[in-house]
Amino acid sequence: MSAIDDLTAELAKLPGIGRKTATRLTFFLLKQPRNVVDSLARALTTVADKVGPCADCGNLSELDPCAICRDPRRDRSVLCVVEDASDIDPIEQSGEFRGLYHVLGGHLSPLDGIGPKELGMESLRQRSEVGSGVKEVIVATNPSMEGEVTATYLKDVLEGSGVRVTRIALGLPVGGDLEYADKMTVAQALSARRDMGA
Amino acid sequence: MSAIDDLTAELAKLPGIGRKTATRLTFFLLKQPRNVVDSLARALTTVADKVGPCADCGNLSELDPCAICRDPRRDRSVLCVVEDASDIDPIEQSGEFRGLYHVLGGHLSPLDGIGPKELGMESLRQRSEVGSGVKEVIVATNPSMEGEVTATYLKDVLEGSGVRVTRIALGLPVGGDLEYADKMTVAQALSARRDMGA
Repeated sequence: MSAIDDLTAELAKLPGIGRKTATRLTFFLLKQPRNVVDSLARALTTVADKVGPCADCGNLSELDPCAICRDPRRDRSVLCVVEDASDIDPIEQSGEFRGLYHVLGGHLSPLDGIGPKELGMESLRQRSEVGSGVKEVIVATNPSMEGEVTATYLKDVLEGSGVRVTRIALGLPVGGDLEYADKMTVAQALSARRDMGA
Repeated sequence: MSAIDDLTAELAKLPGIGRKTATRLTFFLLKQPRNVVDSLARALTTVADKVGPCADCGNLSELDPCAICRDPRRDRSVLCVVEDASDIDPIEQSGEFRGLYHVLGGHLSPLDGIGPKELGMESLRQRSEVGSGVKEVIVATNPSMEGEVTATYLKDVLEGSGVRVTRIALGLPVGGDLEYADKMTVAQALSARRDMGA
């Protein structure tokens, strides 16, 4: 396989990038000065070298624990549960949350073999046990069907641990994706959070 | 700047990739096994290391001269002039052309300082001089306004050199881009090429 075909094939593995777009990107890169390609290649290996999950919350970070977990000004009595590390940034941008996070790494998806164990729900239960100081768990899984199912399941897991379990308000468009929401909507959803019923 | 922000910034430099898409790609890559990221980084540096313009035709290739120029079965009496190296593949795919290529590297664009000299039109004139064996130059610049202007200018440059100058037929959608045409349309456009008038 030629170097051009090889790069095109690698780029086409990325989500939302088909064969034609990959070809266009390859020829774009071939027209750039050498240092542009080198910067991109270096950024890729640097991110793979340096970034990993925070042992405490699962956030992707160059530090372990991550900058949020080690910040003494954060409120350790509130945990915000998100599906992915990429969901943390929009919540931080909203300025409505000063607690800590817990990254599940996805949502419940029995057909794909992703159950409570794969999402590390037991470690979340331990983090919010009596004596941990955690008073509230805000469930900020996506407002999609899978996110709602995961939220309901989490409510059951945390039942009886004495913590208040809340759900961000559905100010987010239903069926949407937290990662793409604007910060006003995220702020609204956080401030209008409600106690979870059975 | 963090490694995550750095990779996002590098990805956002690519055409058609905005900040949100770049963020999504970064987090996608962070979820992949290490070897996926390494393959992409390696493909990038390999392409930059190995691929360069063919000294004869300007095609981007790991070989110099490129595989097309060194193929003894190609018809050396016909040159097909294209704007970019990425335009060669759709023409090859059409199966309608067995001659050699000449890559201009763009189209005439006086406002951007791209004139006949920047496009190497003199080297094209030399390639098709009397005694070179070239009998026909097919002008396959894009069917856009700039491509048409470039085609007309080429016709004038080659006037009097004795070669037949033809233009691919406008079976391609006007205002479109050769790179994205399907191969039947490209085949049609090549077989219906017409002599260029003044």
